[in-house]
Amino acid sequence: MNAIAVYEGADKPVVTEKPRPEPSAGEALVRTLRVGVDGTDHEVIAGGHGATPAGDDHLVLGHEAVGVVEDPNDTPFEVGDVVVPTVRRPPNGANEYFARGEPDMAPDGQYHERGIVGAHGFMAEYFTSPAEFLVEIPPALAEWGFLVEPISIAEKAIEHAYASRSAFNWDPESALVLGNGSLGLLTVATLDEDFERIYCLGRRERPDPTIDIIESLGATYVNSNDTAIPDVPEAYEPADFVFEATGYAPHAFETIEALAPNGVGALLGVPGDWEFEIDGGRLHRELVLHNKALVGSVNSGYSHFEAAVESLAALSEAFLGDLVTGVYGLDDFEAAFADDDTTIKTAVEFAAYEER
Amino acid sequence: MNAIAVYEGADKPVVTEKPRPEPSAGEALVRTLRVGVDGTDHEVIAGGHGATPAGDDHLVLGHEAVGVVEDPNDTPFEVGDVVVPTVRRPPNGANEYFARGEPDMAPDGQYHERGIVGAHGFMAEYFTSPAEFLVEIPPALAEWGFLVEPISIAEKAIEHAYASRSAFNWDPESALVLGNGSLGLLTVATLDEDFERIYCLGRRERPDPTIDIIESLGATYVNSNDTAIPDVPEAYEPADFVFEATGYAPHAFETIEALAPNGVGALLGVPGDWEFEIDGGRLHRELVLHNKALVGSVNSGYSHFEAAVESLAALSEAFLGDLVTGVYGLDDFEAAFADDDTTIKTAVEFAAYEER
Repeated sequence: MNAIAVYEGADKPVVTEKPRPEPSAGEALVRTLRVGVDGTDHEVIAGGHGATPAGDDHLVLGHEAVGVVEDPNDTPFEVGDVVVPTVRRPPNGANEYFARGEPDMAPDGQYHERGIVGAHGFMAEYFTSPAEFLVEIPPALAEWGFLVEPISIAEKAIEHAYASRSAFNWDPESALVLGNGSLGLLTVATLDEDFERIYCLGRRERPDPTIDIIESLGATYVNSNDTAIPDVPEAYEPADFVFEATGYAPHAFETIEALAPNGVGALLGVPGDWEFEIDGGRLHRELVLHNKALVGSVNSGYSHFEAAVESLAALSEAFLGDLVTGVYGLDDFEAAFADDDTTIKTAVEFAAYEER
Repeated sequence: MNAIAVYEGADKPVVTEKPRPEPSAGEALVRTLRVGVDGTDHEVIAGGHGATPAGDDHLVLGHEAVGVVEDPNDTPFEVGDVVVPTVRRPPNGANEYFARGEPDMAPDGQYHERGIVGAHGFMAEYFTSPAEFLVEIPPALAEWGFLVEPISIAEKAIEHAYASRSAFNWDPESALVLGNGSLGLLTVATLDEDFERIYCLGRRERPDPTIDIIESLGATYVNSNDTAIPDVPEAYEPADFVFEATGYAPHAFETIEALAPNGVGALLGVPGDWEFEIDGGRLHRELVLHNKALVGSVNSGYSHFEAAVESLAALSEAFLGDLVTGVYGLDDFEAAFADDDTTIKTAVEFAAYEER
């Protein structure tokens, strides 16, 4: 079968031939429909993140997949079920984090991530997975199912941020999403029902398709070239909730200044080392005197995928159509890895969904 | 009656004569037993924190009080009840935070703090308080009741930190308390039942009475002159929970490096402005990839005082005797404001408790 992989030392993905996988006991065989591309894929390709499976010279890419069960192989699934796989797998049998359904809380060394670190991804015509790591979704969502994984990332971060405010009565009204990439835009859309006012910060100038999407969602675009994050409270309003999806390290600390009293910032970016100066005294004092919190969040678990399916079902086709700027077949899969100002979200299509 | 106050422009507290307060409707009159002294009092005296009540040229000190109801004045209390007052009061009638019993979550301008900002404190022979701000404690705890307020500060911070970890299965084993002042020591004692291993960091050299207390509690002293906070994980172990009670701003950020994966740091210090360099990229990445959180916490509410009464009752007399290095009458109240290496926790005594 065909797969899209990046070889060690290479800086571009290629189509490669791999044997079609055979499901082991407890695993189903899934025919891949679509696999999304995100910033993590670009980091993996650039060699800044992730690792090939032990003993292999390449990594099959892809962690945002949707597919159709081809062979249930004695799992509870039926042929034709539309499924989305979760990403983390236990490296050596199970461990406590997987045993309690919280692989997203496993520390370094206690997980592989398919398509990212230590395990091949889903960018292939078929993949196998233990049934416990497959989330069934409604067939009507098959076309957009590759968005379940990125939405699940937001769901987990939001859940953890809300948990941090659960010791008191918290009634957030305003949210500030840092980053107008695909995760930022999906988060703006996902938060839409919970917040009266949503702001989304980016560094693009008009005209720009991401700004159009932000405004079509009823949110306000904040141009970081005009308004630095610490100035957002005065220029717009303090945010009860900040969702950082930029990976730009100063933003993690500026978040403290953008927050309203009793607010929380969810941090999701993964920057490299970078030393810079902060007014640490002011930020420390601000965290304490106004009961603010910062919550880091990585990956997502089964329950977050389930929540993401609900959220995806609530998103409009118009928004999804604007967000997904391209779905490409194997013939022009390179286009799915473009990283320019007209590309927002892309996917590689391995097969079209056909209802049975 | 006699009161201990600091006058505007002065840098020392004095005994001053004030009229005995008359309880208004809904208020009880309380005869003061003891009032503790802490770092906030020192900051208020130094002029770095707090404000006198509008129209007054002085502030009666004291926010850590215990007293006996002298006149219930139609409140549910009875003469002789031993009570501890909470600290915050609504500035102009009630507001939403006080209405729902969460004055500790009120932002600037929505609260006064007795003995700190905008309202006279409890360092006087009598004080009045609305009954809803008085917490009854067992008479057996009358002697140590002035410790309920500082313990309540720890209870709130611990509650909020735990809440931030409530979205997953968190089973913390190791705690690191930053600061061996009275709040740090009370926290070590309070955490004792919940953690298998507790570390307490300070910058004192042996022999030192606070180190003796830390070790008598079964905790491990970490000398910050030998081991910087980022080195604690390697020199000792990473901490599931960090409790910052130093007000030293770099500690707020170093906390991220001391935490174990999925750990949380509660921040309580209130430093002044201070610019310094951090490896913000590494800290941001560490927060995210290991699901870490920082939670700022200030003040405490009624429920935290109630929890503190329980915690106080569980502390040993031996520990309390070591912690409280002096209780002074009005004749030598200045000694209660000493700030040297032999002073840990002090109180001013206005009256001895007599069982009725």
